[in-house]
Amino acid sequence: MSETLLSSRNLAFELYEVLDAEALTQRERFAEHNRETFDAAITTARTIAEKYFAPHNRKNDENEPRYENGEAVLIPEVKPAVDAFLEAGFLNAARSFEAGGMQLPTLLSQACFAHFQSANAASTSYPFLTMGAANLIENFGSDEQKQRFLQPMIEGRFFGTMALTEPHAGSSLSDIRTRAEPAEDGTYRLRGNKIFISGGDHPLSENIVHLVLAKLPDAPPGVKGISLFIVPKFLVNDDGSLGARNDVLLAGLFHKMGWRGTTSTALNFGDNAECVGYLVGKPHHGLSYMFQMMNEARIGVGMGAVMLGYAGYLYSLEYARERPQGRLPDSKNPESAPVSIIQHADVKRMLLTQKAYVEGSFDLGLYAARLFDDTQTGETEDQRKLAHELLDLLTPIVKSWPSEFCLKANELAIQILGGHGYTREYPVEQYYRDNRLNPIHEGTHGIQSLDLLGRKLAQNGGAGLKQLVRLIADTCERAHAHESLSTLRQPLEQLVARLQSVTLELLTDLAQGKVTATLANSALYLKAFGHTVIGWRWLEQAIRAQEGLNTGNTADADFYKGKLQAARYFLTWEVPACHHELSILQARDDVCLSMQNDWF
Amino acid sequence: MSETLLSSRNLAFELYEVLDAEALTQRERFAEHNRETFDAAITTARTIAEKYFAPHNRKNDENEPRYENGEAVLIPEVKPAVDAFLEAGFLNAARSFEAGGMQLPTLLSQACFAHFQSANAASTSYPFLTMGAANLIENFGSDEQKQRFLQPMIEGRFFGTMALTEPHAGSSLSDIRTRAEPAEDGTYRLRGNKIFISGGDHPLSENIVHLVLAKLPDAPPGVKGISLFIVPKFLVNDDGSLGARNDVLLAGLFHKMGWRGTTSTALNFGDNAECVGYLVGKPHHGLSYMFQMMNEARIGVGMGAVMLGYAGYLYSLEYARERPQGRLPDSKNPESAPVSIIQHADVKRMLLTQKAYVEGSFDLGLYAARLFDDTQTGETEDQRKLAHELLDLLTPIVKSWPSEFCLKANELAIQILGGHGYTREYPVEQYYRDNRLNPIHEGTHGIQSLDLLGRKLAQNGGAGLKQLVRLIADTCERAHAHESLSTLRQPLEQLVARLQSVTLELLTDLAQGKVTATLANSALYLKAFGHTVIGWRWLEQAIRAQEGLNTGNTADADFYKGKLQAARYFLTWEVPACHHELSILQARDDVCLSMQNDWF
Repeated sequence: MSETLLSSRNLAFELYEVLDAEALTQRERFAEHNRETFDAAITTARTIAEKYFAPHNRKNDENEPRYENGEAVLIPEVKPAVDAFLEAGFLNAARSFEAGGMQLPTLLSQACFAHFQSANAASTSYPFLTMGAANLIENFGSDEQKQRFLQPMIEGRFFGTMALTEPHAGSSLSDIRTRAEPAEDGTYRLRGNKIFISGGDHPLSENIVHLVLAKLPDAPPGVKGISLFIVPKFLVNDDGSLGARNDVLLAGLFHKMGWRGTTSTALNFGDNAECVGYLVGKPHHGLSYMFQMMNEARIGVGMGAVMLGYAGYLYSLEYARERPQGRLPDSKNPESAPVSIIQHADVKRMLLTQKAYVEGSFDLGLYAARLFDDTQTGETEDQRKLAHELLDLLTPIVKSWPSEFCLKANELAIQILGGHGYTREYPVEQYYRDNRLNPIHEGTHGIQSLDLLGRKLAQNGGAGLKQLVRLIADTCERAHAHESLSTLRQPLEQLVARLQSVTLELLTDLAQGKVTATLANSALYLKAFGHTVIGWRWLEQAIRAQEGLNTGNTADADFYKGKLQAARYFLTWEVPACHHELSILQARDDVCLSMQNDWF
Repeated sequence: MSETLLSSRNLAFELYEVLDAEALTQRERFAEHNRETFDAAITTARTIAEKYFAPHNRKNDENEPRYENGEAVLIPEVKPAVDAFLEAGFLNAARSFEAGGMQLPTLLSQACFAHFQSANAASTSYPFLTMGAANLIENFGSDEQKQRFLQPMIEGRFFGTMALTEPHAGSSLSDIRTRAEPAEDGTYRLRGNKIFISGGDHPLSENIVHLVLAKLPDAPPGVKGISLFIVPKFLVNDDGSLGARNDVLLAGLFHKMGWRGTTSTALNFGDNAECVGYLVGKPHHGLSYMFQMMNEARIGVGMGAVMLGYAGYLYSLEYARERPQGRLPDSKNPESAPVSIIQHADVKRMLLTQKAYVEGSFDLGLYAARLFDDTQTGETEDQRKLAHELLDLLTPIVKSWPSEFCLKANELAIQILGGHGYTREYPVEQYYRDNRLNPIHEGTHGIQSLDLLGRKLAQNGGAGLKQLVRLIADTCERAHAHESLSTLRQPLEQLVARLQSVTLELLTDLAQGKVTATLANSALYLKAFGHTVIGWRWLEQAIRAQEGLNTGNTADADFYKGKLQAARYFLTWEVPACHHELSILQARDDVCLSMQNDWF
């Protein structure tokens, strides 16, 4: 049977040949695990994703949530799917045994989650948002808050959201207007409006815990005056039972191009001046707390984008294998049988491009998950710190690169299906519509590029960047051992050398205060940096594939040859093209910045 | 009031500064016309498009045609819109006065049509398909066929379709299975199934005239055995009145990602063995007849893609001007007022990119229309022939370039609107979904690239290519007169020189029989060739803009500066990047071709 969610062989390659997941079982936290427990978790994830999530992916799209009597109504298939996810323990996959979790490495939990993201992005959102919110309370909430709100979330009885965006402010969080007034009992009364709150209402859980950004009366201006509050849909009594309905109103639902199964809500807090909230952590520190959740969320968005690309790739691959049409250019006989379209060179190009984008960013997403494990369970303080620096640097790429290029992959999947791909009778158009959200939410593409160039590169004396350059050099060094990889290694070496010098120039400009001019072309920098990172990951995969081939294991030879071909595609067709972006950056070209409003 | 369909100033620039539309009035056929009659036609088009077409564009999308009792049902707004189009005479805009037309140059009729394509791609399709079908009967039908079918089409009483695609064959027309058996009365009986027939049923006209490709019993194999038939939905009596329902069954409707207002139908011909058809022209010559219509259709598709890009560009431009959000990077004061987002450099980049794509391909589409006029009314036989060669060569670019890059423009329009752009409360997501059809229908992107590299380049000894190179050299020569344009001219000169040498190499390979290997990378060639053509058109626009600036007319100075900036963007940010594609072509890289089915 062909696989529709992801390639199990490729996942095993990532886990056990590229990222050495088994080494994690040497760490104390994961000592109870081994390859068998890892694979069992993955099998469970695949089974539930196939059985409960994939079948209603289209139905979710065709029957978007409805607003009825102040509540959001979903199709009935969502709850059993989410319940199966909860019952199998995936909500707490990374949490400790004693806290009721599976105590899996994040690398493995991400590998499990990938199946759900591929099967049904929309239904998967609800537990994912809950995990993010729960982690935030776990890290920054008081003991009482943990008992009252976190524990029921861990048990899957309460779900969570993150409520940041406001109608007038969009990405500009410093301008939020939601206010929180202290009440006499130590709680707060919130008043304000939020939009685009995913999962802001649904019938999947007893209660919904909103994590809301708001400003206290004495808040300093800007991002340093934002505080974080827990605002439950229903108040929770001391004994844990549900109390009165809180003053949080579902004002309406947004109707989206895709990702329709996830409610996107407008929420009014405190229309009746009775919206109770609980301050999380210290006043005015809300944004830094939220950013921890956001960084996890960004990796989640990146993996979500990868998996939509993956689903489209596998579908179009299967279609191309089965669909006979046309003849090869040198065929002379019009009465010969048509060939399957996978034999047409341009179809191969579209499949190979998808493979390069999808498997390249799948590797990066899992690599980032592995780094996250190192930040938590790395052996030394120094290792954990290094992992943290590198993950911080890579986060904008993990989020933005798949959002752009796996969307492009989805575009190619449609093209392979031709007219059929454009109809809703086939799944690929939905993947494309779903994926179009990813360059927007959890920080737009533009924000990722500013985060990378304006903040992450220079952070802590460029510690992340230095490490990345060292790791790439190390990969290139190991590639030297394989003569067959020299044409793959050289373009990466050339690009990374140039990227380093351009980076130095730009950081110098920034240090000299040329902020506006330098950041103006940050989109180009994001592209070149991203392709360098993915190129590096492909060279790493190519080394493993070459090593695999060298063992003479014929059963896997085709798999490894495909890896080498995709690596060759990416490193020779895509990586060298980025010198163009670097040239523009080096020239300090100002064509965009100098464009004037009146000239349009 | 801001314009929503296209910029009138830009259209006037194209018609009267770049393409010299007034010179056409020197030709006998257009002697009755002048700038006033041209502008009057344009004003009428804009008025009708704004009043009847634009208002139901979203409603078309939300209420796609329904299948009821064997017929397609549309929303009631479509017919009054189409009727207004007919009543104003646009169906026969290019037809002669004596045939009841407006006798406008095609340049002008395209300029008029652009307004409808921008306002409502779906409703516009019905009369457009009819124009194509009518032209085909006019050129190849018998006098009797013209009287019986063409005349009611000209009068707007009968509409038309082109019925090519079959379920198993897709783009591979040589494999169609629809059969036509001669009957005793000189007519034919057709039997077969067609899919994706746009406008295959609707309640907008008394009758629908399908132009159907089918094979006669004695047909030679392949594309040389295809004949063309008129198959009306209702038979037409000798006196012109409608006769019996023909044996053409609406088998179903396709449900598309976008462009939903246009019925996409599955038609069964001859389920009851009583489907009457009339042979057009000679047996087995159907494909060459159809290709005439298809070439016009491809230019129409290209302009349609441009106009969806244009609509999205104008909407996102207006939004960016009005939406306050965030502060510039060097702002130190978080309490300062937010700026309108058009002031952010990355938003300027996304707008300038859209402008470059949209106005560049708008110029090309109108240039192609002007060439079409030259093929018909050029003064000498030689001029007409030259125009024909060049138009033939450019057709794959006119069709494919906007389909790819104005879709990209729509993607950027969504990004500018952020979360709002992703909702159906704003129009940009629909433009994106609508535009995704264009790289597929009327010959996919892959087919355009094969048409260009495998057929058009070498056609008639490369007459079209030689002419194009001469015209580009002429433009570069004229650009020499303006020192300010040297940084724009040089990248084009460099690219076109390299393109010429790569083209020569590839044509030599083809002549030596290396067909499969050479055509394998045709997508890269299409990209490089297309960017060369659009780069040339931008340099041409830049010359006119510089000339305009030099006149010292201050009222237009901003407009001209915007043109120069967009030209600079395209020629310095986009054109040089194509050396990368040419390098791959020059290396005869086979990474895609050598990929094997089993390696995926």
